Amino acid sequence: MDKNQNLSQTERAVLGLRGLIVQGQLKPGQRVIEQMLVENFGVSRTPARAAIQRICEEGFISEVPRRGYVVSGFTEQDVFDAIAIRGTLEGMAARMAAEKGPPPGVLASMKACLQAIDEALQERDLEIRQNEYAGLNDRLHELVCEAAQSPMITRAMQRLSAIPFSLNNSFTDVPPSAEERVAAILRSAQEQHHSLVEAIERGEGTRAEALAIEHSRSTWKYLTLMLHLRGEVELPAGLEAALRGHGA
Amino acid sequence: MDKNQNLSQTERAVLGLRGLIVQGQLKPGQRVIEQMLVENFGVSRTPARAAIQRICEEGFISEVPRRGYVVSGFTEQDVFDAIAIRGTLEGMAARMAAEKGPPPGVLASMKACLQAIDEALQERDLEIRQNEYAGLNDRLHELVCEAAQSPMITRAMQRLSAIPFSLNNSFTDVPPSAEERVAAILRSAQEQHHSLVEAIERGEGTRAEALAIEHSRSTWKYLTLMLHLRGEVELPAGLEAALRGHGA
Amino acid sequence: MDKNQNLSQTERAVLGLRGLIVQGQLKPGQRVIEQMLVENFGVSRTPARAAIQRICEEGFISEVPRRGYVVSGFTEQDVFDAIAIRGTLEGMAARMAAEKGPPPGVLASMKACLQAIDEALQERDLEIRQNEYAGLNDRLHELVCEAAQSPMITRAMQRLSAIPFSLNNSFTDVPPSAEERVAAILRSAQEQHHSLVEAIERGEGTRAEALAIEHSRSTWKYLTLMLHLRGEVELPAGLEAALRGHGA
Amino acid sequence: MDKNQNLSQTERAVLGLRGLIVQGQLKPGQRVIEQMLVENFGVSRTPARAAIQRICEEGFISEVPRRGYVVSGFTEQDVFDAIAIRGTLEGMAARMAAEKGPPPGVLASMKACLQAIDEALQERDLEIRQNEYAGLNDRLHELVCEAAQSPMITRAMQRLSAIPFSLNNSFTDVPPSAEERVAAILRSAQEQHHSLVEAIERGEGTRAEALAIEHSRSTWKYLTLMLHLRGEVELPAGLEAALRGHGA
Repeated sequence: MDKNQNLSQTERAVLGLRGLIVQGQLKPGQRVIEQMLVENFGVSRTPARAAIQRICEEGFISEVPRRGYVVSGFTEQDVFDAIAIRGTLEGMAARMAAEKGPPPGVLASMKACLQAIDEALQERDLEIRQNEYAGLNDRLHELVCEAAQSPMITRAMQRLSAIPFSLNNSFTDVPPSAEERVAAILRSAQEQHHSLVEAIERGEGTRAEALAIEHSRSTWKYLTLMLHLRGEVELPAGLEAALRGHGA
Repeated sequence: MDKNQNLSQTERAVLGLRGLIVQGQLKPGQRVIEQMLVENFGVSRTPARAAIQRICEEGFISEVPRRGYVVSGFTEQDVFDAIAIRGTLEGMAARMAAEKGPPPGVLASMKACLQAIDEALQERDLEIRQNEYAGLNDRLHELVCEAAQSPMITRAMQRLSAIPFSLNNSFTDVPPSAEERVAAILRSAQEQHHSLVEAIERGEGTRAEALAIEHSRSTWKYLTLMLHLRGEVELPAGLEAALRGHGA
Repeated sequence: MDKNQNLSQTERAVLGLRGLIVQGQLKPGQRVIEQMLVENFGVSRTPARAAIQRICEEGFISEVPRRGYVVSGFTEQDVFDAIAIRGTLEGMAARMAAEKGPPPGVLASMKACLQAIDEALQERDLEIRQNEYAGLNDRLHELVCEAAQSPMITRAMQRLSAIPFSLNNSFTDVPPSAEERVAAILRSAQEQHHSLVEAIERGEGTRAEALAIEHSRSTWKYLTLMLHLRGEVELPAGLEAALRGHGA
Repeated sequence: MDKNQNLSQTERAVLGLRGLIVQGQLKPGQRVIEQMLVENFGVSRTPARAAIQRICEEGFISEVPRRGYVVSGFTEQDVFDAIAIRGTLEGMAARMAAEKGPPPGVLASMKACLQAIDEALQERDLEIRQNEYAGLNDRLHELVCEAAQSPMITRAMQRLSAIPFSLNNSFTDVPPSAEERVAAILRSAQEQHHSLVEAIERGEGTRAEALAIEHSRSTWKYLTLMLHLRGEVELPAGLEAALRGHGA
């Protein structure tokens, strides 16, 4: 199924351009012009222009006098802060869920999701395990947001999701030498999931907030580990530049 | 000086449309069409369409099948949550400022700003006092954000500022009968400012975060007070609908 | 009514000795011997010895080789930390009260207490106002602790109350020149009380905790103000030594 | 080496009586009389009486009209709260350490301690592993307290350590069937240790506080696990009564 099938031309160009940057095909300092989007994604000029404006607003590219739009560079601190911002909003959602009490159906779904992750972590093949984990992890985070019962916080999360690198999962291929350490990070993240759902169920708002925030550090630990595998692992180039402190 | 002079057509249409909704000229449920923007703000069709998409993304209008775009309604909880989200991010910025230590120049500016607010609060005319307070208050909040030294948090604050009602100042005209209570809210908010700057200076991150979050409740207290003055005070219609629980 | 009437000899000696130190009749470095308690408080030797051990455990005196027990000195940081420790436990109690939901009777008493403080603050005579405030303030803090419904936290608060200077009210006489500033501190503390009870009632645990902790800073602000009135106001000598940084 | 060799008679009686209760030889509701201490611990009457008063103040026994002193019963909530209170104070100490910056020597000791725990967790024999862990764990917690550089917080921790069940380690024998689960709890607790020291080193006070508080839940998880092993494991009777909700 092509998720992009029903998207407007603008949305298609936005997703495509964002991907080129995050995946590193477009590197910090490179120019971005409408024609590139027209050719790459088969959209016409107006949506191409709208997409460039959106991606600029998101911070992936910036307008430079006399050069037009160029790909932004990010520092390690930027990546760290982006993860922390997402973590802060997720913490707020978790606290609200605990304070209001989660709707029973949502709580049940969270528990089912927890169990599915427990099972996924038993899977022997690392790649399958990691893919299943990533999908279920996204689902669990959506459920926490849903449990907060706040359209505003949902909207805020969506708006911020466009902040570079604040993605829940920036998983990449893991070399055999790092399998055990990645497994340890996932195991530890899943323990935080269990504590988080427990805290929400028991109405412990402060604790739920703290757990969600600390949990967001897992992403950071994962990225840092990947970085230490230099040479063995292929990071998205934009991310690599950031983490190695070579951002423009 | 017309601040809007140098804006692009799209930006002019965005500001204009947002204003029509927040001020209540466009009410929940009313349709929004390109032609309206073309006529009201003298922009052409493409920027009008871009503006509508942006305002839709911000949540002020939503797309309804077979009706096109209609103005959204907001509940009291929405307004409350929007204020809380802004408060949470400001809290994060304040904590980061305290943990990193604010740049000396920024700290000095914060203290000068505090003193200017102290003086503004001595002003006898309520309207002048409130206007001066509003401007200086905005400035102080910008300085806290600057002290966090994080381009990402600055960007996040900007992106969220478009969330309906999450404005720092939603001041309106105050009837004489409420002057004393408004004065008390401003006085109390200014005490929080003093404690906040003290906490940032002393490196007390947890305290700075808590103060910034609690401080955001002042906006809520102010709005609630305005609401209780029903009949005496003119609230923006969109806000009034929300606070009175009559949101669509 | 003499509250001390029914106390055991040990308790009488404990209260008496603690008072001599806090009031500054016994100064940092001075020796404390059993005979002093026997003579001052009319107790026999065994309870005098027990009292000295208790006061030593509380930290007001310490055992020095070849000199026996001598009065401890406290630094400004000690006083600050003692207040912060009490604030932290009160914050925990407030959070627990909010998370569990306060018993209706206790909530009603808290609101009645709030109103009584509002009225006390209208009292024109500063001394009467301050005395009424002190009593009602103690009562409100007891109610918050009661609302936490935890015998353990109640016990912990009692055990810590013996920590030097962690008293809720260390009020003293206020010179006319400081009346307005003391009034401002009380007014601001009472606003925090209102927010605290609101947070407990609404189940906002994180907020209740933060408010109780920040509220404990009022004591610190009060003590610091008193210190700046040097010459005009008589502080307990032990406290004065601490706040002026002259602790032994 | 007999640690108790140099203790005063009172201290010997205090430790002995506390042990009898925590180990369950004295059960909730049983009477405690001076003669028992005189006979069991070879102390004379005055220190026996002093010990009873101290243990009463700590909450392990209470005075009942016409019956004298009887052993208190504890509910599950009491045990939970006692652990939470200790966690709250440890959180405060960790935050202070992060905000002030830990003394370099203390930070180095913390890191050495972390490494020693990492190594201890490699030990194959569970009993040795657990004993080494317990000792090093105590040491690490002392170092965090030391890093806070606050005599007052140190004193508060000591005073509270007498609160029933708030002990850092309430380890007991583990049956083979539970070895894997105990190992998982220790592994997870050690990950929290690593994050805690990292947060203190980086000056992240809020995070350090949250980690220390969440970490205190490990004790709770451990006790709950032990409880589920009913029949297989011998819990101290006082604790068992509490956790099974059969407290008097």
